Amino acid sequence: MAIHLGANQYGKAENRVVRIYRDTPRHEIRDLNVSTALRGRFDAAHTTGEQGDVLPTDTQKNTAFAFAKEKGIGAIEEYALTLGERFLVASPAAEGARIEVEEYAWERIEVDGQGHDHSFVRSGGGVRNTIVNVERGQAYVVSGISDLVVLKSTGSEFHGFLKDEYTTLPETDDRILATSLVARWRYEHTDVEWDKAYDRIKALLLEQFAKIHSLALQQTLYGMGSAVLEAHPEVAEIRFSAPNKHHFLVDLSPFGVENPGEVFVAADRPYGLIEATVTRDDASDPGSAWHATPGFC
Amino acid sequence: MAIHLGANQYGKAENRVVRIYRDTPRHEIRDLNVSTALRGRFDAAHTTGEQGDVLPTDTQKNTAFAFAKEKGIGAIEEYALTLGERFLVASPAAEGARIEVEEYAWERIEVDGQGHDHSFVRSGGGVRNTIVNVERGQAYVVSGISDLVVLKSTGSEFHGFLKDEYTTLPETDDRILATSLVARWRYEHTDVEWDKAYDRIKALLLEQFAKIHSLALQQTLYGMGSAVLEAHPEVAEIRFSAPNKHHFLVDLSPFGVENPGEVFVAADRPYGLIEATVTRDDASDPGSAWHATPGFC
Amino acid sequence: MAIHLGANQYGKAENRVVRIYRDTPRHEIRDLNVSTALRGRFDAAHTTGEQGDVLPTDTQKNTAFAFAKEKGIGAIEEYALTLGERFLVASPAAEGARIEVEEYAWERIEVDGQGHDHSFVRSGGGVRNTIVNVERGQAYVVSGISDLVVLKSTGSEFHGFLKDEYTTLPETDDRILATSLVARWRYEHTDVEWDKAYDRIKALLLEQFAKIHSLALQQTLYGMGSAVLEAHPEVAEIRFSAPNKHHFLVDLSPFGVENPGEVFVAADRPYGLIEATVTRDDASDPGSAWHATPGFC
Amino acid sequence: MAIHLGANQYGKAENRVVRIYRDTPRHEIRDLNVSTALRGRFDAAHTTGEQGDVLPTDTQKNTAFAFAKEKGIGAIEEYALTLGERFLVASPAAEGARIEVEEYAWERIEVDGQGHDHSFVRSGGGVRNTIVNVERGQAYVVSGISDLVVLKSTGSEFHGFLKDEYTTLPETDDRILATSLVARWRYEHTDVEWDKAYDRIKALLLEQFAKIHSLALQQTLYGMGSAVLEAHPEVAEIRFSAPNKHHFLVDLSPFGVENPGEVFVAADRPYGLIEATVTRDDASDPGSAWHATPGFC
Repeated sequence: MAIHLGANQYGKAENRVVRIYRDTPRHEIRDLNVSTALRGRFDAAHTTGEQGDVLPTDTQKNTAFAFAKEKGIGAIEEYALTLGERFLVASPAAEGARIEVEEYAWERIEVDGQGHDHSFVRSGGGVRNTIVNVERGQAYVVSGISDLVVLKSTGSEFHGFLKDEYTTLPETDDRILATSLVARWRYEHTDVEWDKAYDRIKALLLEQFAKIHSLALQQTLYGMGSAVLEAHPEVAEIRFSAPNKHHFLVDLSPFGVENPGEVFVAADRPYGLIEATVTRDDASDPGSAWHATPGFC
Repeated sequence: MAIHLGANQYGKAENRVVRIYRDTPRHEIRDLNVSTALRGRFDAAHTTGEQGDVLPTDTQKNTAFAFAKEKGIGAIEEYALTLGERFLVASPAAEGARIEVEEYAWERIEVDGQGHDHSFVRSGGGVRNTIVNVERGQAYVVSGISDLVVLKSTGSEFHGFLKDEYTTLPETDDRILATSLVARWRYEHTDVEWDKAYDRIKALLLEQFAKIHSLALQQTLYGMGSAVLEAHPEVAEIRFSAPNKHHFLVDLSPFGVENPGEVFVAADRPYGLIEATVTRDDASDPGSAWHATPGFC
Repeated sequence: MAIHLGANQYGKAENRVVRIYRDTPRHEIRDLNVSTALRGRFDAAHTTGEQGDVLPTDTQKNTAFAFAKEKGIGAIEEYALTLGERFLVASPAAEGARIEVEEYAWERIEVDGQGHDHSFVRSGGGVRNTIVNVERGQAYVVSGISDLVVLKSTGSEFHGFLKDEYTTLPETDDRILATSLVARWRYEHTDVEWDKAYDRIKALLLEQFAKIHSLALQQTLYGMGSAVLEAHPEVAEIRFSAPNKHHFLVDLSPFGVENPGEVFVAADRPYGLIEATVTRDDASDPGSAWHATPGFC
Repeated sequence: MAIHLGANQYGKAENRVVRIYRDTPRHEIRDLNVSTALRGRFDAAHTTGEQGDVLPTDTQKNTAFAFAKEKGIGAIEEYALTLGERFLVASPAAEGARIEVEEYAWERIEVDGQGHDHSFVRSGGGVRNTIVNVERGQAYVVSGISDLVVLKSTGSEFHGFLKDEYTTLPETDDRILATSLVARWRYEHTDVEWDKAYDRIKALLLEQFAKIHSLALQQTLYGMGSAVLEAHPEVAEIRFSAPNKHHFLVDLSPFGVENPGEVFVAADRPYGLIEATVTRDDASDPGSAWHATPGFC
């Protein structure tokens, strides 16, 4: 019997890089969570402990911070691509680099009706992110949003489903539909106006969630994904992971009180979990675009 | 030696009450986390296990949901007062009821430039809450906000502090100041326009955080609190708990790169923790207003 | 109207101090989470921003780490007392110091039937902690345990409770009783063998939880507390905060399956929350022993 | 342009199933977190909203609870296989079922030197889990452990690594090595004594972590994995995800105090993240064994 090393990667996770632009009194802020990882011919590091091919995770961290100044941070996709390419140069044994960046959004605090120059408040509405996989001669960009919590108080049905002897769920033509959405879309190439594309896709996802009369969370997600693909030729496919955050109608009849869709209990666990991909027929090969992405490979 | 029961309370924590108003096609939502507790003469329940005086926590839960329909949910302070009074009626042994409510904010999703009738997205900017203590003949209301994450990228100094042989911190006249604010203010009475007062106090806290040139987080908090007391005669006192979320300037000099206040690492632990109360000289007696409030008693 | 500063404290929270004793090849480890805070005459720091009385939280952090070497870490109570006394010396304006320490337990990894010299695995069974308040001429020690998750699969009843029109809970003479216990006990003085006392009190709490036939979580807690007070004259009082972690019997009758106390769903929220103090008649004055302790003041 | 549905699955996540065996006064407990998901020909559910092929997640939940009684819960692998097979019967459109189970460990509370019949305390030392993928005619079992927190206070070096212009890390021949291990191993078949195999593999992982003199976390993991493969012919491969939980030596020299490997600060973020697979040359094809497993595909 022979034993050998299989798939592996290593890196520094969750570098909290904060970049302030202060060239004018009106500061800008980019607030990131950066994780980097290398994969490739690192057998010796594992089998003999010889580290000559290993660019330390500490060096990866240093590079992430240094580049925040040297290269600056514009769109997170741009920053991630630059970092990934750097690591392939610095690490001859690496065959691929994976850079994941989350960006936390800030709004200017309003003072006398105007946004303040250097004071900010963290805003909600989801966390933007990107996962960039760079290989020698190839780069893949998957961008997305997480923690986008949305709810419809009507316009959602669920019926006509398969039943077996363990089925007790009643059919309904009016329920609350709520989820904490994770959406990730793969770009066909890197010739994209990243910030603009993100803003438009996020707005489109929200708008579609609102407009679609839902027959199931699956159908809502498919509709949302189709709308993105139709409007964005630069997007090859989009994947969703959406917990069905159940809101159960509370039975108030023991107290002689009717409850026509007005009082609900928001449940924690268990929750439905719907995962779906919407893709186009002529989408390019994903290559390593989805490498090590939770729930999506 | 004799042993006896000391302070005690019991209740149902974290009821996730969601109330939809659907009287017109334009729905409204109030999304709450409700915790109730009773205190008083419950010795037998503890010492002999006899439960005749104990209104079950399950009944407290039922009441919280039933009242969401029967009494409706307007301002959380109103709802909490109504619940607290009910429990004193239902539980003759209770001497006090404590009702804590958090409210999660939702915005309408924008579709074609307009807020949608029944589709919502969770917004950020802090979580509103109230803690109401009702005793027989007396009611106390402490309202507040938590998770209000704010940051100044300049306009913050820290120097002139006490030094001993373990002091290594350099003085600075320019640093990032950031916190995840918890603020709680005690109202003098219950004759308050709750929603309006909350909106104004929150706006004032943000505005003051922005405007105050900071010499220390303590001084910023004191200034924020003073502004609230000056503008709101109905507020007796305000208490803050504010982690100093350190952003350390990264030393890029090993790479030959200057870093004049541009690249920071956001640290998790340890963090400074500043707690302070601002009060007025003629504030009424707090009574049990702060009963069992974390960090504030 | 005059505004002034009320209660306040400031310090460094959650210093993760790890101390290795390596005087012999058989290492020892103490793994702590240390939070320190000072209170007293710090008005200028708040009202004018003048920091001359303020020993920086950074210095407090440095002292916590330096003392881990200079004074060593034996029992966490001893370490906390030493730190607290130091801060009163270093900070003339301080009237009190509060030191909170959590200790994470490690066991030696077993190799060939023996505990390894320098390899450890984190163990469960609750987190030991202490809260020490030192004032000039006085020291208070409250020690405890948190995250002690216990469950009885029978030997627990709940009936005879007060009912009103919102009561639907059926009475039961056999249910699961489960909690994640927080217990804190105040020592009468500091002449205590800290490690031994902790071990015995923890064992006694567990044993009593097991032995007491429960008529309510309140009665179980009271019995546990009484046993501690009876066996430990050095303990003045003990306080509990215990979520009633509900395990609901699942209704399997729709599937023609009986469920005589065998299959339960463990619920997250809401949960009952029972808080109680057991004290002795001749307990000393608590002074500031419970200062700023969550849920207990 | 044509758009279509890609990979998808749906199910009920995090069912908290607690099973008590009470056939004798000496109760047994199995405390599980069960997530189920189906994948296959569910296009209509997405594209038209027609749910005729969809066995509701609510039904999946009911089945998980009913089977806890009808089939019982022995080893979690057995329970997961039984559930997975059931779902393929109940759902003709399903091509695969994925069942993930976590098991929380409980120990009997000791009373008078003996384990109590029906009172338990949650123990630490990691969470056992299994991921079972069942397809028509094929079943895959990947079992593992998570949250196994281990630390070596010496016997760990790191040097000889690749350096570039962003490298500042000093080499070391003595450091703390700590991780919160996730290990998952794929079984070659289902003819395994599950509980026994788990206990042995867990013990072996711990023992190897202790015994291996570490030149890097990579080399430690490889050694641990090799040992498992050598001792367990039923294991095809093993995968690790191991955060390098940094413990930094604290510089006490400003205080005139030496620190020869005795006082460390345990850091939260960033952390190294090492992921590696150890496999045997003649391992069977993994098929869908690793389907949707976080970080491992």
